Amino acid sequence: MTTYSAPLRDMRFLYHELYDGAELTGLPGYEEATPDLVDAVLEEAAKFCENELLPLNRIGDEEGCTYENGVVRTPPGFKAAYEAYTEAGWPALSVDPEYGGQGMPKTLDFLIEEMVCATNLAFGTYPGLTVGAFNAIKAHGSDDLKQTYLPNMVAGKWSGTMCLTEPQCGTDLGMVRTRAVPQDDGSFKITGTKIFITAGEHDMTENIIHLVLAKLPDAPPGIKGISLFLVPKFMVKEDGSLGARNGVMCGSIEEKMGIHGSSTCVMNFDDATGWLVGVPHKGMRAMFTMMNAARMGVACQGIGLGEATYQMAATYAKERLQGRSVAGPKHPDKPADPLIVHPDIRRMLLTMRAYTEGNRALALWITRALDYVSKHPDPAVRADHEDLAALLTPIAKAFFTDCGFEVANLGVQIHGGMGFIRETGVEQYVRDARIAQIYEGANGVQALDLVGRKLPMNMGRPLRFFFHPVSEYIEAKSSDPALMEFIMPLAKSFGRLQQATGWIAQEGMKDPEQAAAAASDYLRLFGLVALAYVWTRMAEVALANMDGGEREFYAAKVATARFFMKRLLPQSSALFAALMSGADTLMDFEEAAF
Amino acid sequence: MTTYSAPLRDMRFLYHELYDGAELTGLPGYEEATPDLVDAVLEEAAKFCENELLPLNRIGDEEGCTYENGVVRTPPGFKAAYEAYTEAGWPALSVDPEYGGQGMPKTLDFLIEEMVCATNLAFGTYPGLTVGAFNAIKAHGSDDLKQTYLPNMVAGKWSGTMCLTEPQCGTDLGMVRTRAVPQDDGSFKITGTKIFITAGEHDMTENIIHLVLAKLPDAPPGIKGISLFLVPKFMVKEDGSLGARNGVMCGSIEEKMGIHGSSTCVMNFDDATGWLVGVPHKGMRAMFTMMNAARMGVACQGIGLGEATYQMAATYAKERLQGRSVAGPKHPDKPADPLIVHPDIRRMLLTMRAYTEGNRALALWITRALDYVSKHPDPAVRADHEDLAALLTPIAKAFFTDCGFEVANLGVQIHGGMGFIRETGVEQYVRDARIAQIYEGANGVQALDLVGRKLPMNMGRPLRFFFHPVSEYIEAKSSDPALMEFIMPLAKSFGRLQQATGWIAQEGMKDPEQAAAAASDYLRLFGLVALAYVWTRMAEVALANMDGGEREFYAAKVATARFFMKRLLPQSSALFAALMSGADTLMDFEEAAF
Repeated sequence: MTTYSAPLRDMRFLYHELYDGAELTGLPGYEEATPDLVDAVLEEAAKFCENELLPLNRIGDEEGCTYENGVVRTPPGFKAAYEAYTEAGWPALSVDPEYGGQGMPKTLDFLIEEMVCATNLAFGTYPGLTVGAFNAIKAHGSDDLKQTYLPNMVAGKWSGTMCLTEPQCGTDLGMVRTRAVPQDDGSFKITGTKIFITAGEHDMTENIIHLVLAKLPDAPPGIKGISLFLVPKFMVKEDGSLGARNGVMCGSIEEKMGIHGSSTCVMNFDDATGWLVGVPHKGMRAMFTMMNAARMGVACQGIGLGEATYQMAATYAKERLQGRSVAGPKHPDKPADPLIVHPDIRRMLLTMRAYTEGNRALALWITRALDYVSKHPDPAVRADHEDLAALLTPIAKAFFTDCGFEVANLGVQIHGGMGFIRETGVEQYVRDARIAQIYEGANGVQALDLVGRKLPMNMGRPLRFFFHPVSEYIEAKSSDPALMEFIMPLAKSFGRLQQATGWIAQEGMKDPEQAAAAASDYLRLFGLVALAYVWTRMAEVALANMDGGEREFYAAKVATARFFMKRLLPQSSALFAALMSGADTLMDFEEAAF
Repeated sequence: MTTYSAPLRDMRFLYHELYDGAELTGLPGYEEATPDLVDAVLEEAAKFCENELLPLNRIGDEEGCTYENGVVRTPPGFKAAYEAYTEAGWPALSVDPEYGGQGMPKTLDFLIEEMVCATNLAFGTYPGLTVGAFNAIKAHGSDDLKQTYLPNMVAGKWSGTMCLTEPQCGTDLGMVRTRAVPQDDGSFKITGTKIFITAGEHDMTENIIHLVLAKLPDAPPGIKGISLFLVPKFMVKEDGSLGARNGVMCGSIEEKMGIHGSSTCVMNFDDATGWLVGVPHKGMRAMFTMMNAARMGVACQGIGLGEATYQMAATYAKERLQGRSVAGPKHPDKPADPLIVHPDIRRMLLTMRAYTEGNRALALWITRALDYVSKHPDPAVRADHEDLAALLTPIAKAFFTDCGFEVANLGVQIHGGMGFIRETGVEQYVRDARIAQIYEGANGVQALDLVGRKLPMNMGRPLRFFFHPVSEYIEAKSSDPALMEFIMPLAKSFGRLQQATGWIAQEGMKDPEQAAAAASDYLRLFGLVALAYVWTRMAEVALANMDGGEREFYAAKVATARFFMKRLLPQSSALFAALMSGADTLMDFEEAAF
């Protein structure tokens, strides 16, 4: 009953029409990413995800991973699918050709990642983490480390992990206890226990490359004393072949609410040999390279799961006959009308659509910025786009995953009792979606990152790269009668966002608890306003194309934009009122009374 | 890690202080329900739920029910717990003494039901459905049926079910295909397949009494041709002992997202012997007797699961050390501050609290009304309270269960990565809570019931029993400076509710799709305003007691009321704007474009 067909038309709309795909092709290094090639790659990826990954999704959930004596077996079919995935070259798609990659834009890669998330989130966690580890080694590792490890990671022969969390510390990495002792040969002996390590152990690749946060003997206390180390599962010999097993073992795997096909490992490091990545005690900086990419990866999960559950729910709503339209039978020849005639079913479906398509559009604004950061020749342009991406990444991570969970739940709701039955398949998406709100920094932590780091960064510089284009756009279009119905609510909610931003900047300076108390509501407000902006821009493009040959597609865009403005954007008023009420209602409550 | 201690102080506050418990004692038949007895019963129930049911909750989830050759085995320990439960007389607590019950108020029973839901929702579904079946037989069955079946059901020796759903019909019961053929002896032969039958088969009781919707040969088409039948699993002989197995068998049980300990059965009726309950073709009326009680039972689940997850999350937030307060270390002697210092953690905990305690207070307004309906000597008073309960029941069912799911998810979120791990226990509550939004009429159906049936009922008469007391209260207290901070937002949101109600009445008359399109947002708006009312009243009582010996308890009430007004009630503005935007954005979307 799980159906999925990659939303290629929408992806092409965003890539080529909302944004100008040709601009990306114009960046040095992206010359080969022509519109035709982009479309062909999207189609190939869709086939792979629909035919190879989707059929394994429920098997992964039902069978899960198994653990025995340090060995982890992934669910039946996962290993073969992974081989097909690497053989087709998917891990290398957006990687620098220097390391064997195909050098395609990150924007294209993101859309393919979405298809993987939509069809098999658990599977996607294996290659997904490798990308983060690859990025960190590439950005901070020595040439020797890069040459030894990166090519096999790009080829998918070796996978990567991020080993941060320990039993006593998750968010607060300053409390890391894992120790690294320098050896005479320049290597380090790593000892400690890491938990919640995604893909920490599995049977898909020949080697696993762990990136591990640990403390050197002379480390300053807290977060400023963390260093990053590369620890392979198997030692790599001079000639590149695999040597002895290193001192790192999987102690157990977790039973979880969802993503059963993804192994979540306790990893025990016992005098394991490792190498420093980057500068001593500056591991957090290197780790942030991984985390920002990983956060966009998690943001992507919210979109993919949203799209998949939308499609399941829409299919069900059109097929399931139940009750009659309140306006009188619409299919009198049938024993009942399909669910889709009911306004409340449509409200749920349109909510799912408005969030999913809106978030996809916003995501591509960010991935484009990342493409500019990596390829634009002008450092000033790169810096501007880096600031925009830095600002919007925590919003994407938290807002998209909150939406993804909400959308998946609406998918269950539309299925009624059938939605609660495992065989139907949709409830798995709810359980899988739940983790995205937690890992790579819980969504409350993203909100703190937004108000505590991104807003004040460089005197508010990042904010400009969102506020300026939006206000310029509003001004430019405010006299266009066709856009009035979108521009008006956008402008109103944008005004609220500006006011809230000023308030947080001012009050937060005097009392950081004010900013922290506002953070989650502010992040959601920001997300909604950003969606209002991209929905207005999408409506503009769609309105200009209504008379062409694809009227239905563009009309649906305009109608969804309308729905978003009237039915979802009003939340901004409630969020504004809530956050402006200040921290007192939170902080005055006696701790003992909780 | 699952901890629960029944919120006895809050329950006593509501029973005796917010509402006047003595008034209930004054109703004929409730004379024995003195304050002391009520408190003693609550304490006994708390002990039972904490000691007997809670330890079985995770076992029930992990082991689930098993099916083999028509036999269903409940999880280890469930049968023994059920025996203890019936031995202690809990099923009989609020039942009429005429049938062996103890005649306690439904209000008291509801609080105990909450404890059952909080400690073991799956267990609670077994006795829970018996109550509904008991009510329907008592209200509509013949004397013979009542005498044969009710005493053993009250004693818990026999359990009951509600057999409504069939593969082709859930919400739309007019499509029922199960047939009932009259026999010469006054009995009927029932044939058909029912699905999603909670506790349809299990090993806890000697007999199971099914109440089955079916069609007689001369039935008019649709919903007006449904009759209700009693079908026992084992035939009952003249002397009351059990005879032959009846023609009803469990065909399989469902694998579900949650409530694994509750058996969800496919029931095959094959020429099963049954008896008519009530009048031919008027089965829906009898079924509604069961459904209204069942809906309050499901509403109760939202509260119970909310309370349990709140307690788990609050405990974790006070114990888990992670990060430092943004205002500077609050426990410099420890390696980190506890989570509870963070404003965003407090925001989540207070949200959980404000919904759970607010919903409990609102629920007791409804159960009191039900107590008046069943015991008050004046038929006019009974009718008034019946109208109030009819109006608020769909709101309680949908709003409380939506809140319950939201609260359970906040509980997971506060636990971070630990929340996603099954062993922690809190994620089970999310999976269990999910069904409450679906069964006994999906929440969208409750919203339609509210706007389509309850608002227009008797020219809007039921509405009066909510609108009048609220506006009188606002008027009476509007010059009390101590209450101003509560009365002002209450009055404002109440104004929105009145305006929305008028709009729905007017527009819905012209176009039913307008009312249907507004329904879900309207129901949530109504729920929030009702909570604003009960929170203001709770704050009033608490303020009056602040100088007594329990300052902390009353101060927490006032602080939570404040939080609700400032941080949650603002949603009412967004809901108002969304619903007032009308049906067009929903209905103009092309069906084919979904």
